[in-house]
Amino acid sequence: MGEIYLDNSATTQVCREAAAKAMEVMTENYGNPSSLHTKGFQAERELTAAREAVAGMLGVLPEEIYFTSGGTESNNLALFGAAHALRRRGSHIVTTAIEHSSIMNTMKQLEKEGYSVTYLEPDKEGRIRPEQVFKAVTPSTILVSMMYVNNEVGTILPLEAVPQAIAAAKAPALFHADAVQAFGKIPVKPKKLKIDLLSISAHKIHGPKGVGALFLRKGVRIEPRAFGGGQEKDIRPGTEAMPLIAGFGAAVKALPDTAEQYAAMEKLSAYCRKRLSEVDDVTLNSPQDACPYIVNFSAGNVRAETMLHFLSNKGIYVSSGSACSKGKESRILTAMGLPKSRIASALRISFSRYNTEQDIDGLVDAVKEGLATLTTKPI
Amino acid sequence: MGEIYLDNSATTQVCREAAAKAMEVMTENYGNPSSLHTKGFQAERELTAAREAVAGMLGVLPEEIYFTSGGTESNNLALFGAAHALRRRGSHIVTTAIEHSSIMNTMKQLEKEGYSVTYLEPDKEGRIRPEQVFKAVTPSTILVSMMYVNNEVGTILPLEAVPQAIAAAKAPALFHADAVQAFGKIPVKPKKLKIDLLSISAHKIHGPKGVGALFLRKGVRIEPRAFGGGQEKDIRPGTEAMPLIAGFGAAVKALPDTAEQYAAMEKLSAYCRKRLSEVDDVTLNSPQDACPYIVNFSAGNVRAETMLHFLSNKGIYVSSGSACSKGKESRILTAMGLPKSRIASALRISFSRYNTEQDIDGLVDAVKEGLATLTTKPI
Repeated sequence: MGEIYLDNSATTQVCREAAAKAMEVMTENYGNPSSLHTKGFQAERELTAAREAVAGMLGVLPEEIYFTSGGTESNNLALFGAAHALRRRGSHIVTTAIEHSSIMNTMKQLEKEGYSVTYLEPDKEGRIRPEQVFKAVTPSTILVSMMYVNNEVGTILPLEAVPQAIAAAKAPALFHADAVQAFGKIPVKPKKLKIDLLSISAHKIHGPKGVGALFLRKGVRIEPRAFGGGQEKDIRPGTEAMPLIAGFGAAVKALPDTAEQYAAMEKLSAYCRKRLSEVDDVTLNSPQDACPYIVNFSAGNVRAETMLHFLSNKGIYVSSGSACSKGKESRILTAMGLPKSRIASALRISFSRYNTEQDIDGLVDAVKEGLATLTTKPI
Repeated sequence: MGEIYLDNSATTQVCREAAAKAMEVMTENYGNPSSLHTKGFQAERELTAAREAVAGMLGVLPEEIYFTSGGTESNNLALFGAAHALRRRGSHIVTTAIEHSSIMNTMKQLEKEGYSVTYLEPDKEGRIRPEQVFKAVTPSTILVSMMYVNNEVGTILPLEAVPQAIAAAKAPALFHADAVQAFGKIPVKPKKLKIDLLSISAHKIHGPKGVGALFLRKGVRIEPRAFGGGQEKDIRPGTEAMPLIAGFGAAVKALPDTAEQYAAMEKLSAYCRKRLSEVDDVTLNSPQDACPYIVNFSAGNVRAETMLHFLSNKGIYVSSGSACSKGKESRILTAMGLPKSRIASALRISFSRYNTEQDIDGLVDAVKEGLATLTTKPI
């Protein structure tokens, strides 16, 4: 029986191009980019090529890209770096109640350090409205951090409102966007959206796990979190993770055209929604206008973990909430105010370019079987 | 012409076993260890296997190993984590003047935060004496951080004096060792040396660049530097760098017997010293009792960068100082009080198990040729 991998927002299979490049950098072109000999220069060329690929995808300058160990580090560096750099200008931060745990838990830490944080609450479909942003940003706001695409239900957040709200309030705020679930899937253009800092990760787009990047707009100063040998212009020191970085670059280059791919995903997502809605007891939690890469739904009174294991035994891989929450009750769905039973039975499926309608047929058949055979006592 | 790679303290070629394992984890076993399905469990098994391999090599418990993005992050996490956790017990820290830049620059940052740091000065051969440690540690010392093997000249530091000095002073100090240049080369046993925190890196032992680990003794509490989804028991969150971590584990498993390998390196190092000492104008900077993996020497009045490029053009790769200092004047040799001319002409060669006596013959011949042909005006 073939596997059906529908957990691409947790992580993806590394594409052939990225794996081959990582291999090359491990075995042949294995120099340290800081070394002053040919082997070092060759490694530095790989580093530059990867930086240019990522920058090109974002439409920014290569020198505005800083490689990190992933989305979590990018988010931590952005939030602490910006908040500490602007400490003298104010202590108010705006974010949302549906951010990834690497934002949420960093915000909790910043609160302990004396910052005050406003968390914008989502509506029942996981949406944040522009008016909420305008209301929250004040003249003492130093940072607004908003995710681009929510990782559990796929809602797209109103990023375009942020620079307007900052300007309207005459706030000194920097604008950070967590684009981990958006990069490579929808057109992410920091310049157009007046974003100052933006986090991305390789392993959501068929790059390897363990590498990400922070876009830091030229001229924006943040405080580093780590100190060392000067790599990444002292913003993120440490010998560069060359296999991963080069693999990241290759994965970006291997991305299909964003618009074409988005259209394909809309088709796949529509098919998935249609097939799921034919199943009694299935309720969709992702709104109609969500990013098509993610579909969240609740299945009857079967606990998510029970259904997840049932599906896993059939080689079908989905998620309950985000991988980073490891089975805890979804903070996002709770913030959306869904009834407890729907939260407890919520599953997330997330697509990649390797998924097909047959995968969805396999999933829907298995969910039906699960609903018919698994204990469905009221949760 | 074959290449002669003698810059293994900067970085190493990834061994076959580690590269194959990284490849497997990218293309087949690509799950997220936090995922609750079979694909996630398989990834978690790889993570556990790597953790056990590293722990086994150190003779510690697997749960005492925390994977990081490398030596720099391990060092930052150890120093900030320990200093912040013990802030109420005191503010005095002891280290040496010959640490890696990721220790040195973190110490400078801790000084800005109000800590006072004592830097033990080396003698002319790069040695730190136990008496210096005893003299420096006071009842208000909260942290002692000492490297195991110096990365530029190879001196082995008196780690055994540290717990004795802490006990003698009745200090609340934690003991951190930067073992990046020692791990896999000399027997590194944290328990025996009463080390509380220890930093290691994969890419110095034929593992991939971008991964390291922090040993944190069970019961020792430090403050995390990053916040997120709970990975690595909240000490180091972020989706695990699976290709690198699995590769790290494989590289550790592929290490030859430490004692046998050390004996082979002593032979190689002795041969190298003998051959170099036959060259007029060559002065050894590494003392006789240094770790045999590193030999630092000064060659006449030829600037290190000039000789380095001359050798590089012949496919012979060495270093001037450490890779992380990128051509700046060596802070270590300066602390040792060497004359400026010897510092300016200093080269570091560093071995791996793949090096042979023929490599050294090739190097020595080329150095001779360089001394004969390159401009040797007084520096």
